[in-house]
Amino acid sequence: MSQRLNNFTNWLKQNDCSFALLTEPKNVFYFTGFMCNPHERLLGLAIFQDREPFLICPNMEVSQAQQSGWQHLIIGYNDQEDPWEIVHNRIKERITTSSLKIAIEMDTLSYTRAQKLQHMFQQIEFLAAEPGVNQLRNIKDETELNSLREAAKLADFAIDIGAGAIKKGKTEKALVAEIEYELKKRGCEGMSFATTILTGDNTAAPHGHPNDRQIHEGDFVLFDLGVIVDGYCSDITRTFVYKHVSDEQQKIYETVLKAEEAAINIAKPGIEIGAVDRAARTLITDAGYGDFFTHRIGHGLGLGIHEAPSMSSNNTENLQTGMVFTIEPGIYIPNIGGVRIEDDIYLGENGSETLTKYPKTLQIID
Amino acid sequence: MSQRLNNFTNWLKQNDCSFALLTEPKNVFYFTGFMCNPHERLLGLAIFQDREPFLICPNMEVSQAQQSGWQHLIIGYNDQEDPWEIVHNRIKERITTSSLKIAIEMDTLSYTRAQKLQHMFQQIEFLAAEPGVNQLRNIKDETELNSLREAAKLADFAIDIGAGAIKKGKTEKALVAEIEYELKKRGCEGMSFATTILTGDNTAAPHGHPNDRQIHEGDFVLFDLGVIVDGYCSDITRTFVYKHVSDEQQKIYETVLKAEEAAINIAKPGIEIGAVDRAARTLITDAGYGDFFTHRIGHGLGLGIHEAPSMSSNNTENLQTGMVFTIEPGIYIPNIGGVRIEDDIYLGENGSETLTKYPKTLQIID
Repeated sequence: MSQRLNNFTNWLKQNDCSFALLTEPKNVFYFTGFMCNPHERLLGLAIFQDREPFLICPNMEVSQAQQSGWQHLIIGYNDQEDPWEIVHNRIKERITTSSLKIAIEMDTLSYTRAQKLQHMFQQIEFLAAEPGVNQLRNIKDETELNSLREAAKLADFAIDIGAGAIKKGKTEKALVAEIEYELKKRGCEGMSFATTILTGDNTAAPHGHPNDRQIHEGDFVLFDLGVIVDGYCSDITRTFVYKHVSDEQQKIYETVLKAEEAAINIAKPGIEIGAVDRAARTLITDAGYGDFFTHRIGHGLGLGIHEAPSMSSNNTENLQTGMVFTIEPGIYIPNIGGVRIEDDIYLGENGSETLTKYPKTLQIID
Repeated sequence: MSQRLNNFTNWLKQNDCSFALLTEPKNVFYFTGFMCNPHERLLGLAIFQDREPFLICPNMEVSQAQQSGWQHLIIGYNDQEDPWEIVHNRIKERITTSSLKIAIEMDTLSYTRAQKLQHMFQQIEFLAAEPGVNQLRNIKDETELNSLREAAKLADFAIDIGAGAIKKGKTEKALVAEIEYELKKRGCEGMSFATTILTGDNTAAPHGHPNDRQIHEGDFVLFDLGVIVDGYCSDITRTFVYKHVSDEQQKIYETVLKAEEAAINIAKPGIEIGAVDRAARTLITDAGYGDFFTHRIGHGLGLGIHEAPSMSSNNTENLQTGMVFTIEPGIYIPNIGGVRIEDDIYLGENGSETLTKYPKTLQIID
């Protein structure tokens, strides 16, 4: 049994759980090596204290599951079958007590699916599986780190392509097309999320969508994007100005940059996560922009683009060696524009490593 | 109040529901015009029998929500706030009884979120909101149909680009890059799902992922892709052969094509959905390939790439005027390859309309 499975099995024992049923595709991938988007169909991984685990997936995914390296049972089902009946039978083969404690992904398992489990057994108690899974997923091993480094390198490359493509009259969507083309023709497996390129006023929306707005002189041009390598996501943001920069724009930029550096500097194993957010927030508030930094400082990064830990001011957990997360303060002023600078940080044994390396000094694109 | 909201409010009344809390972004968009990917944050739309509805979203999304055309209350919250406390207070303002029946999206609302609602009130009963929402979303109006037509037209265009780009030695991923570039530089808002281009043996996996395999003579080349227009998805599959075709490949192709046409011909308002699947399946089984058609005949299409109705052999519901769905039989033979042909079908007042129009006779690309 793999080390990951073994660790999770120990967690089940410590928590007196009969078994876990995991259905979140990224969690299934983490333990099986099998990446699958089952859409509305059931993809499930059942892990027991001391019985053979099993993977259940649609029949048409079985051959890919077999090729994934998963060494244990794989069960396929047709669209005409009820996969929950199969799950029930396979669990009954392995567990005979009728009073059970089951670990489920409470934050993603649907109410319908939780009910299906509830109806299978006479007495059932649910435990959140997320703490058990995340304590493993939070700490990246060397293989994961290498994928994250590679993904970050491609994100840097993408920003470089983007900066080179900025031109008067070019639309936000055209910039997206050019960057993704350069990445995909090099064989990149996918973007971490919909590539976000915003210009001028549009940069004032932290989660705006690229549209047909054209670049004008004096615009902020904001790139927020990420690349997937072996399932692992990078996430970078850089903001440029086109042709000339106003004093206000420069002040906003320098404030965000200082805040980002302050947060990166304070982020060390043993530090409370909330303190990282506050380090940036205090600096931005002192510069008079506190109301315009409307989101947390960052989020964990790995198989998920937003995964644990949440880098929020009210997170009292401590950072740990092996964690990877983003640091991404921003200032967004309606009708003026916004700046965000974002890097991916790995906390290693010997200090932190910024995986994304594209320069951060304000660049005026000519 | 919009017609859609009005219709849904009537459904709440018929079902004696105090209110519905919708959190599925596409459902929220359907009623509000506001499209948002909130990631793990709460996006919620509360609809009452006779009180003002409200939309709750992260603060950084509020300006976009305001621009969406939603005429009612919008509530923003910070990452430091608990949005569920806000939801609770706003509901208490509107509803004073402590015994409630609440409509939730049981198939997507997480167990954690359902519990949060459960803990808000003394006595609570859940009802699945999906039937109420889907009976509206299933029937496309003229505006939706126009978006779907446009999305299908772009899907045809994408297949045309793809067919033109087939060349000896070209990789699957390179074909993906070229197609998406041509679409995105024309301003397309996104792909319905990760563009799937498979060649040779790889076509035997109905849900395979494009890799670096290069095109060889005698390969099947399968394109499965879709384009989003105004939030609405198209979904098309075409399979070509490169340079020359074997007798077996030709037989497989012709069988799939006949099955697809048979299913399209039978799909009419009032017909049982299962019969559409069976029309294709019988034909494929009779040709000796029954074991290799491993999925349902199709799925509903709209804001969701897989939405109601499920076009499965055991679905006993009837097709209705206004529905849009895919018809996509396939035959997948390990080590030989696979063929799938997929179109998007609209059931109009005056017969059915195939929205995707790219030719389906077997093309041997030279």
